[in-house]
Amino acid sequence: MKFTVSEIAQMLDGNIVGDEKITIDSAAKIEEGRPGCISFLANSKYESYIYTTQSSAVIVNKDFVPKKEVAATLIYVENAYTAFTILLEEYQKRIANAKSGVEQPSFIGENSQVGDNCYRGAFSYIGKNCVIGDGVKIYPNTYLGDNIEIGDYSVIHPGVRIYDNTIIGKNCVIFANTVIGSDGFGFAPQADGTYKTIPQLGNVILEDNVSVGSNSTIDCATMGSTIIRTGVKIDNLVQIAHNVEIGKNTVIAAQSGISGSTTVGEQCIVAGQVGIVGHITIANKTKIGAQSGLGKSIKKEGLSLSGSPARDLNEHLRSMALVRRLPEMEERLKDLENKHETSDFQGQ
Amino acid sequence: MKFTVSEIAQMLDGNIVGDEKITIDSAAKIEEGRPGCISFLANSKYESYIYTTQSSAVIVNKDFVPKKEVAATLIYVENAYTAFTILLEEYQKRIANAKSGVEQPSFIGENSQVGDNCYRGAFSYIGKNCVIGDGVKIYPNTYLGDNIEIGDYSVIHPGVRIYDNTIIGKNCVIFANTVIGSDGFGFAPQADGTYKTIPQLGNVILEDNVSVGSNSTIDCATMGSTIIRTGVKIDNLVQIAHNVEIGKNTVIAAQSGISGSTTVGEQCIVAGQVGIVGHITIANKTKIGAQSGLGKSIKKEGLSLSGSPARDLNEHLRSMALVRRLPEMEERLKDLENKHETSDFQGQ
Amino acid sequence: MKFTVSEIAQMLDGNIVGDEKITIDSAAKIEEGRPGCISFLANSKYESYIYTTQSSAVIVNKDFVPKKEVAATLIYVENAYTAFTILLEEYQKRIANAKSGVEQPSFIGENSQVGDNCYRGAFSYIGKNCVIGDGVKIYPNTYLGDNIEIGDYSVIHPGVRIYDNTIIGKNCVIFANTVIGSDGFGFAPQADGTYKTIPQLGNVILEDNVSVGSNSTIDCATMGSTIIRTGVKIDNLVQIAHNVEIGKNTVIAAQSGISGSTTVGEQCIVAGQVGIVGHITIANKTKIGAQSGLGKSIKKEGLSLSGSPARDLNEHLRSMALVRRLPEMEERLKDLENKHETSDFQGQ
Repeated sequence: MKFTVSEIAQMLDGNIVGDEKITIDSAAKIEEGRPGCISFLANSKYESYIYTTQSSAVIVNKDFVPKKEVAATLIYVENAYTAFTILLEEYQKRIANAKSGVEQPSFIGENSQVGDNCYRGAFSYIGKNCVIGDGVKIYPNTYLGDNIEIGDYSVIHPGVRIYDNTIIGKNCVIFANTVIGSDGFGFAPQADGTYKTIPQLGNVILEDNVSVGSNSTIDCATMGSTIIRTGVKIDNLVQIAHNVEIGKNTVIAAQSGISGSTTVGEQCIVAGQVGIVGHITIANKTKIGAQSGLGKSIKKEGLSLSGSPARDLNEHLRSMALVRRLPEMEERLKDLENKHETSDFQGQ
Repeated sequence: MKFTVSEIAQMLDGNIVGDEKITIDSAAKIEEGRPGCISFLANSKYESYIYTTQSSAVIVNKDFVPKKEVAATLIYVENAYTAFTILLEEYQKRIANAKSGVEQPSFIGENSQVGDNCYRGAFSYIGKNCVIGDGVKIYPNTYLGDNIEIGDYSVIHPGVRIYDNTIIGKNCVIFANTVIGSDGFGFAPQADGTYKTIPQLGNVILEDNVSVGSNSTIDCATMGSTIIRTGVKIDNLVQIAHNVEIGKNTVIAAQSGISGSTTVGEQCIVAGQVGIVGHITIANKTKIGAQSGLGKSIKKEGLSLSGSPARDLNEHLRSMALVRRLPEMEERLKDLENKHETSDFQGQ
Repeated sequence: MKFTVSEIAQMLDGNIVGDEKITIDSAAKIEEGRPGCISFLANSKYESYIYTTQSSAVIVNKDFVPKKEVAATLIYVENAYTAFTILLEEYQKRIANAKSGVEQPSFIGENSQVGDNCYRGAFSYIGKNCVIGDGVKIYPNTYLGDNIEIGDYSVIHPGVRIYDNTIIGKNCVIFANTVIGSDGFGFAPQADGTYKTIPQLGNVILEDNVSVGSNSTIDCATMGSTIIRTGVKIDNLVQIAHNVEIGKNTVIAAQSGISGSTTVGEQCIVAGQVGIVGHITIANKTKIGAQSGLGKSIKKEGLSLSGSPARDLNEHLRSMALVRRLPEMEERLKDLENKHETSDFQGQ
């Protein structure tokens, strides 16, 4: 997608100094710019870059006065940083809206309804009795089973698999190859050493504004629902087991896993590669450090935890510092033992 | 899928008290029921819920005598818990069997044979010389390469990728977006710092009754076979490297990884986020705790291991308790050192 | 793919002793051979197997003199090991080249160009303005967005998802269901506890000879590029976050994750399940042990690190040995304390 500097200045209510017909097709940091890019200068610390940048245009604060010659076209605005952010959002919105209509071949089952202004990519599959809202984008090579609901303006990226009976709210984004609603890992051990599959008959519910990264998995409940509340953000390669509930606006980073029937509170922050055992409850605003293993319920709100098993972050750091110093501690212990032997000997 | 209470009672050989024409479309715990659900009451501890449940029907033991009015229709059976389990299995079986026939467009290569009563979903791809058994379900958007065998009644979920020469037994289930048989990670370092790819020419064999979760990866052998024995259950996002062998009825939880050429015994339990190094052998019935890292062979059967590096569970717990107490231990060490200095001084 | 022994001998410039018309369809270690396989004997340690192997043919050094009768056909060559490797590579090359042409249905958008001798599988999707080089193989069920470049002879396996503006070099291999270029995990916390999505407008660049395993994820940059340099080898289920740069010939094993804006040097070795925090720089030739957690920049080249937090491998091992001995250390501490109490008492 391409814009002229003149179109951008109009969008941002800015004044142009330089060539207003230059075409912009990308954005870059001022120090990494190349022809065709637009950058911004808000902090005077970076001012030197504006005299050497390869970017074609730079958004600057209205009080900016160049000390040397500037090759780039300048767009003067009230607040350069805010204007740049608005521009990026506008750019992304236009790209997102570029897709619409139905590509062929695509598949749609009996009694499934699709709202207005939707996109259905080639090789996408929608089963029976689905209800797809307005403005929903279903990218190519996706699979939606039967009885699925998807709220307005949600985006289902390529290769996503959504199992029967899943309910997805409005403005959700599910990135490529993520799987929602496959069977929870439930097997009953038998006397002969084999395992019998426990039927997994529940579903998954994603409320509004949920984002799920690529190649993640969210299992359906054994009975009832696995629930991801409004505003939750989940990264790539994350595992959410059956009957888990994730509270509003909680964030979960890449490669973390949450075991079955655990309830995570609201506004928690779970860093990368964290493991959380099943059947526990975690209070609101809990922060869990990378690679931690959480083994029991957290009742007090707002704690910062780390380690495996996880405990108070500062205590964990203190212990880890001493683990590093264990060889030294052992030396000191030996020293004391030697002194004792000597003094025992002397005492004899 | 919907049933009337009357159909369900017939299935379970039960007696109805209440409206036999009510329609059931889901199952729920008695405390979480809603209209359209069926629940069960087996343990008198939960009896109070039967007077308030929103479920439309409840399966009860034949000797159950209500103490108050019950809104739900009751189905009296010999054993309520067993009957409920039978019902869930029957329900799941019927759902599973609901799919059959061939949806279009789908692709099948030369010389590939498909058995009776199979399902081949839209956008599914089957290469050349494959042999697919009876009752096999191949969901939409799947890829099967060449020379693949799949045994009777196995289910290949949407987005699964199966590479050339893979052999899958009977009654296996492979969940969405799992990859079976892609190249093992084998590269030979060269003098100039680059790596040369070692050809990976073996295959993967899954015996009967194997279940593999979503987004997992099982690599083909360099030569020979990566083998997953009968009854093995593998969860989501699990990595099985080349030339690994997993023994009968072993269970591997989410996000665990097993490195190349390792042999895991029968009836082992590997918890979540475990890492196991390559070229080792693990005895039967070994239990490995979550987030453990196993670095050497285990010869004795039935051990419980934990930690990274993994060792006896109880010893690990004892050490971890002391790691938590390291700041206190260091204080005690300082105290002793101070006393010594004092006594040394006094001794002079 | 099948060859006669005679064809193989010609390929390897070898001399046949035995039946030259036998058909070979696979390769195996000499001790695991079965009819139809070819094996090799280079090390006299394994000589006993040649008298019992089930393989149909064995490649041997030109000076090999059997001590007993050998059932297999022998192919005499200058160097048996080298010849076997050449054979495997030739075999794999022929399999790889077996695919070409366009299967239907497949999708290609406006202004996209595809080079000579390419393969485009059924249900593959190519968006607009893509430039695909010569000899590229795009397997079934793949998705390529808009404005993508793929260099000559690269292979895109089934189910791979490549987002808009990605650039892939020559001779790259991307295995099944890997996702390249989906959004980085960037959200700005708002005053009301919700998160606002930060537009991710950059791309991903893979240079030449890069290999990425199955079900891995490489996120696009917020602005600029996430860069994977020439010769990098990435295993399955690996996470590479936005704006990461991986140096030439670095190897990353399964289930490792690298957080945003981190730069990894050249010829590093990252073992399995490693986590690396964001915004750090790692020197060339650094080796990071399995399950390690790296929390700060590494400036010196060639270090071996381990543990979480990661530090010098030998120091880590020493500390871990002492963690195991903590119960014993605590006993020794208690002993000393008891002696002190006693001696204090005596001193009174």
